[in-house]
Amino acid sequence: MSSAEPLTTAQIAELAGISVATVSKVINGRADVSPETRARVEDIIRRHGYRRQKRPARPAPLLELVFRQVRDAYHIEIINGVQSVASEHRMAVILSGLRGRPTPGHGWVQEILSHRPAGIIEVYSVLTDTQSGQLRSRGIPFVLVDPNGEPAHAFPSVGATNWNGGLSATRHLLQLGHRRIAVITGPERALASRARLDGYRTAMDTAGVPVDPALVRVGDYRAEEGLRHARKLLRLTDPPTAVFACNDALALGVYRAAAEAGLRIPDDLSVVGFDDLRPAQWTVPPLTTVHQPLAEMAATAATMVITLAQGMPLAQTRVELATELVVRDSTAPPRR
Amino acid sequence: MSSAEPLTTAQIAELAGISVATVSKVINGRADVSPETRARVEDIIRRHGYRRQKRPARPAPLLELVFRQVRDAYHIEIINGVQSVASEHRMAVILSGLRGRPTPGHGWVQEILSHRPAGIIEVYSVLTDTQSGQLRSRGIPFVLVDPNGEPAHAFPSVGATNWNGGLSATRHLLQLGHRRIAVITGPERALASRARLDGYRTAMDTAGVPVDPALVRVGDYRAEEGLRHARKLLRLTDPPTAVFACNDALALGVYRAAAEAGLRIPDDLSVVGFDDLRPAQWTVPPLTTVHQPLAEMAATAATMVITLAQGMPLAQTRVELATELVVRDSTAPPRR
Repeated sequence: MSSAEPLTTAQIAELAGISVATVSKVINGRADVSPETRARVEDIIRRHGYRRQKRPARPAPLLELVFRQVRDAYHIEIINGVQSVASEHRMAVILSGLRGRPTPGHGWVQEILSHRPAGIIEVYSVLTDTQSGQLRSRGIPFVLVDPNGEPAHAFPSVGATNWNGGLSATRHLLQLGHRRIAVITGPERALASRARLDGYRTAMDTAGVPVDPALVRVGDYRAEEGLRHARKLLRLTDPPTAVFACNDALALGVYRAAAEAGLRIPDDLSVVGFDDLRPAQWTVPPLTTVHQPLAEMAATAATMVITLAQGMPLAQTRVELATELVVRDSTAPPRR
Repeated sequence: MSSAEPLTTAQIAELAGISVATVSKVINGRADVSPETRARVEDIIRRHGYRRQKRPARPAPLLELVFRQVRDAYHIEIINGVQSVASEHRMAVILSGLRGRPTPGHGWVQEILSHRPAGIIEVYSVLTDTQSGQLRSRGIPFVLVDPNGEPAHAFPSVGATNWNGGLSATRHLLQLGHRRIAVITGPERALASRARLDGYRTAMDTAGVPVDPALVRVGDYRAEEGLRHARKLLRLTDPPTAVFACNDALALGVYRAAAEAGLRIPDDLSVVGFDDLRPAQWTVPPLTTVHQPLAEMAATAATMVITLAQGMPLAQTRVELATELVVRDSTAPPRR
């Protein structure tokens, strides 16, 4: 055949002397074809080209991963967790970013529906009730990766033990001998941040150390805020000897404020973070921080949504994975 | 109707008093339906449920983004670049990670074929010739995001001006008055790293400063290697007053080595990195580094692959975007 036109499935089948169904199997990547047949079909396609049919075959199952934004090492952990489970199940991951918008618009849910994912993993709760209702009515299960720790979701979710993390971080500083311990929190609307702060309060209280309101700063989760609050804390008449920053980014801001003030970490100031993202290992000094198992949380959510997609029940609809204090070099006993 | 069974499209159409085609439009997220009709259909689905048909409608167009691994801020930039272009075109992004393997196996290409993406964006060159041939013969275009700077690809690619970046970084240090300037490179097989080193050599040569071989260290791109090499450099009898680290991670290792040696940056040692990932802004002190426009490179690749998918020709098949030195606080004139 010397045609310059690419071939249809039927023409390839004729050339190869096999059935159309077998050609389709090769083209659609199915496993049940002998290596010789596959090679013959591939060879014909390579030489003549292949004219794709209008109607696609059933696509591989997809997991849709919905983010408000994809910004830093935090999101990398979640992507990796979902992808590890998806690849075990030979599923592909679609990323849906909302580019910073808090909630997707109408068209966006329509877009998700058009992908026909086997399941959806949301990071934080971003869909409105109407939107989740629309997905549910199509039989598309979804599970929330919820580092924010809201226990009252109407659907399955995975979080982490934020309160425990705040408790461990503060106990560690108390055990080193600190009493003037400041805390810089995330935003007040963030339940996880409130849980970490409550853990701090309980650790202080059970150690019999009163909490000085001047040492409790409500920030958000950005390094700039850590810098701003730490500057103020370090200028107090009786400044803190240690700071518990409610995420690693805030801790980076504290590092800068300490450098500006000529203070050395941990000699002059101890710092504990929260999250234990990869960069925490390469700050100078390496950051003592509470490990939040984001990759495992995302993997758990992916496993749950696949279970639901297979029509099976979940053992639990709310899972909280353990946080763990990782002691590195940013904490030491106080000088005074 | 009081049936507990979810409804078929035909049953929903009957209940709503509209055509099956209109019900399908609502279910598949099409725009050309009046808000009232959409609300009526949604309401019926909410109350009765919807029995999904076996044969899916045509899925939304997909862009497949193929990574060797998704690990750090570097990959976040690339994901964001692709996603910004995809969302302008109302396309979804599928992430394909290879989990650290250098090249995907046979089954993996079959998986990609089953997604039927409109186009593929590879990060670094990971496919074998056979694999890219298989994709090409299916009429699936692909474009390479190639920070490695190989100019001889058989298919379209986007890189950055690595040589220029190495030149700018080194010139900056020379202009500050440094003469003992060390360089820690990436792996020898990485062309981009060789280009950065060549830029360093040319800057030194045109300034009339001989290159001391003891100050040229071949590393890889990890912080651990930056630490290892910087320790050795700082123990030389005539140590460098400045280090050009060929990526930001290596620079983090240099920061730690400086701290270990009791040297202050930039007073005792100047450091320049390469990449300008987000964490570079929050090192102490903030890192002077060469900005590599990874998000723009990825966006350019996405635009190119969409152009090809639409059957249009590319203006250029090899694009290199400019790098730019970003001066922050890790560089200063030498003390001696």
